[in-house]
Amino acid sequence: MHVTIWNENRHEKKNPEVGKVYPEGIHGALEQFLQAEGRTTGTAVLDEPEHGLTEDVLNKTDVLLWWGHIAHDEVSDHIVERVHERVLEGMGLIVLHSGHFSKIFKKLMGTTCDLKWREANETERLWVLDPSHPITEGIGEYIELEREEMYGEHFDIPAPDELIMMSWFEGGEVFRSLCTYQRGNGKVVYFRPGHETYPTYHHKDIQRVIQNAVSWAAPLNRPRPVYGNHDNPLETIQPKGDL
Amino acid sequence: MHVTIWNENRHEKKNPEVGKVYPEGIHGALEQFLQAEGRTTGTAVLDEPEHGLTEDVLNKTDVLLWWGHIAHDEVSDHIVERVHERVLEGMGLIVLHSGHFSKIFKKLMGTTCDLKWREANETERLWVLDPSHPITEGIGEYIELEREEMYGEHFDIPAPDELIMMSWFEGGEVFRSLCTYQRGNGKVVYFRPGHETYPTYHHKDIQRVIQNAVSWAAPLNRPRPVYGNHDNPLETIQPKGDL
Amino acid sequence: MHVTIWNENRHEKKNPEVGKVYPEGIHGALEQFLQAEGRTTGTAVLDEPEHGLTEDVLNKTDVLLWWGHIAHDEVSDHIVERVHERVLEGMGLIVLHSGHFSKIFKKLMGTTCDLKWREANETERLWVLDPSHPITEGIGEYIELEREEMYGEHFDIPAPDELIMMSWFEGGEVFRSLCTYQRGNGKVVYFRPGHETYPTYHHKDIQRVIQNAVSWAAPLNRPRPVYGNHDNPLETIQPKGDL
Amino acid sequence: MHVTIWNENRHEKKNPEVGKVYPEGIHGALEQFLQAEGRTTGTAVLDEPEHGLTEDVLNKTDVLLWWGHIAHDEVSDHIVERVHERVLEGMGLIVLHSGHFSKIFKKLMGTTCDLKWREANETERLWVLDPSHPITEGIGEYIELEREEMYGEHFDIPAPDELIMMSWFEGGEVFRSLCTYQRGNGKVVYFRPGHETYPTYHHKDIQRVIQNAVSWAAPLNRPRPVYGNHDNPLETIQPKGDL
Repeated sequence: MHVTIWNENRHEKKNPEVGKVYPEGIHGALEQFLQAEGRTTGTAVLDEPEHGLTEDVLNKTDVLLWWGHIAHDEVSDHIVERVHERVLEGMGLIVLHSGHFSKIFKKLMGTTCDLKWREANETERLWVLDPSHPITEGIGEYIELEREEMYGEHFDIPAPDELIMMSWFEGGEVFRSLCTYQRGNGKVVYFRPGHETYPTYHHKDIQRVIQNAVSWAAPLNRPRPVYGNHDNPLETIQPKGDL
Repeated sequence: MHVTIWNENRHEKKNPEVGKVYPEGIHGALEQFLQAEGRTTGTAVLDEPEHGLTEDVLNKTDVLLWWGHIAHDEVSDHIVERVHERVLEGMGLIVLHSGHFSKIFKKLMGTTCDLKWREANETERLWVLDPSHPITEGIGEYIELEREEMYGEHFDIPAPDELIMMSWFEGGEVFRSLCTYQRGNGKVVYFRPGHETYPTYHHKDIQRVIQNAVSWAAPLNRPRPVYGNHDNPLETIQPKGDL
Repeated sequence: MHVTIWNENRHEKKNPEVGKVYPEGIHGALEQFLQAEGRTTGTAVLDEPEHGLTEDVLNKTDVLLWWGHIAHDEVSDHIVERVHERVLEGMGLIVLHSGHFSKIFKKLMGTTCDLKWREANETERLWVLDPSHPITEGIGEYIELEREEMYGEHFDIPAPDELIMMSWFEGGEVFRSLCTYQRGNGKVVYFRPGHETYPTYHHKDIQRVIQNAVSWAAPLNRPRPVYGNHDNPLETIQPKGDL
Repeated sequence: MHVTIWNENRHEKKNPEVGKVYPEGIHGALEQFLQAEGRTTGTAVLDEPEHGLTEDVLNKTDVLLWWGHIAHDEVSDHIVERVHERVLEGMGLIVLHSGHFSKIFKKLMGTTCDLKWREANETERLWVLDPSHPITEGIGEYIELEREEMYGEHFDIPAPDELIMMSWFEGGEVFRSLCTYQRGNGKVVYFRPGHETYPTYHHKDIQRVIQNAVSWAAPLNRPRPVYGNHDNPLETIQPKGDL
């Protein structure tokens, strides 16, 4: 199983505050704890050729993590198509935080994926709604983050196939924070927390959820279904009279 | 409530067989039975300017029906964006038969919407799975069509919010034939039957389902949620210490 | 359409505080605003013979509202069976607040329906998650209640068919507050607010949601499906050789 | 991981035809292929004390398989309660074929679980609707069974959380054949095929689905959520004025 971590990697270069929280970049922080459990990983960033998502890289990727924020528009439509096709073929996709506005997530959802937001150092508490779901393994009844950016409803997404966690925010809002979707042969996870100026990805429970999500989103070993013309019926069709 | 019926209207011109079944076009046949129950309707076809879907037409449309097949690619992306935005604003959309491959349906679903198909004059039987759903009002346990085109699974769509009817085909396949989805403020219905060479839209039960779907997909009288920055919290946020 | 409002009606007799908020009982308050929009209504309470839910009453009831709290165990299993059967036949059921622990709701859900709770005069804010749903017609982005009892996750229910509103509580919890389920030919709504010591059912938006829920849960005019042996196949079955 | 296979084991004793197909009983056939992949298993049958489902047995069981048909009523309510509680605690439950009418399945569903049926040696073809689901790993686009009992819609169950396979029957019906549900901390699978007079459980693909279902339904290592009074809020609640 190979995990590729994609990061826009722009805040890290512009904002020293972010550099202090994530000295190896957000992708570096994600890679570190995934490797710590023995995952085979690679990283890719916006400014690499083909954004680091060449056909070779994507073909060997089982699960792709996606973090982006201020440069969604710079991601080429061609690469978005390539990622989309891989998801439908079975590659897992885990969209993090401000990735809600990425081209790939909007394309997979069919909606604007818009939401309310506020940067105000406020407490977030993510409650588990589905204690039977493997992505919650090892997590208590909730995860508390002392400070995070707020994302509030309405979140303009299709009703999730599975709604697993729901956030409470100090300022008065709620948010569907851990959602899954099936698309073709692939599985998609959206996980809300992870604003660039907070140490969210250093939090053990947040790491646990992402580790679990990687396991859950792993592809099956099966081909895409066969589509198109099926002239040969599986059963005999009786001749019908004139219309 | 204003219903707009959009039809590609190409088979009707090229294939005399289709002209015999639907002398006023497929849009004409749909309009006729919708009007018979007192609906205010209009039609629009591909070859009109802006495909007949001007801003004026769409702004006054509460529910849009969509039939297309051989010319999906000729529908301009600009008009697809306009329809998409109207759906998210609340306009109901009812996608019929080969409309599964229309740009607007694929955009709303986020998948290929591909399927298996066969033209072999075969029997289709649509079974009701959800007898509590208003779209099934007035329908028995199933609708039987002596001859139809086959559409078979796998149908590459997201898991429907509601799966209401499921088709049995003489040649051995099954298909999710009546599905609903919520997208933004809008409601989307996919309804499978309606191949152009068969008198499907003259069938009373098929008409009943479409009438019911129009009622069900009608927009609410409510604005889109407010998205974006919400700097003013609804509750007091406590100051936090240094990170 | 006939609406029956069932109330345990015990707090009203024991607690003068409740009597002040609901001088005609909770059922009286519910009836008043339902009648104000022209509904035909009736009420039934625990201490009537058959709890007021005779076969005659239930047979003419299209939608049943249910409020109970301290005397769930006094509801006879026989009457619960009768209500259950009517729901499966198509009668709408709207379960309010502490009705989450009623026998009928637990029977329909198959789970304990347990939750966290606290009586602390705290603010509740119910956010709309599905702005396309008819039960939210006429409601803004949220409903704010200055003081209510808290119900917190985990709420031990099956994943709702539709999750329409989600509550934020001042004390730090969240809750799935407006949920729908399909059961047989019937539709079930759970709506959280309505603690007996608060004037929640006098709030215009809460009344609006309940009015909308009554409309949404109305039965279709269709019989139960036919179950059991179907010896006569709809299609010819080919003889098979020996096993 | 410990798998317990529960079987009514009555047909096997009464009907020599069944004995020929399943000389070790249906539970024996199920156990054989589960053990072949290294599962730790045990069996339990109706006529044992406590139906073989003592507290000790259930406490060590991670996933329970259930096959019953002609003696559902002989299963004691007390044992059904015990199994129900274990499911809510996290034990996986896989209900097979005529187990649709078992007390435990009806209790978990909240509906009658009724359906249409016919014994006519007819072909069944189970189509995969969700190619991303781990229960379909190793299965092609469909499973074909030359002869089976027919189960037809309407199947009186709640809308499944996940609908994974759908059956086509030679006689003209369809059926939701592979469904999953979440209940409390537990996961429930219903899988249709397996009439006692056919060698269905000797079919490699049917065995594969059941193996996969066992893996999927395995419990997480997490306690039940805490329910009941939570007098201590997580956040400060502001005093409110008089009502």
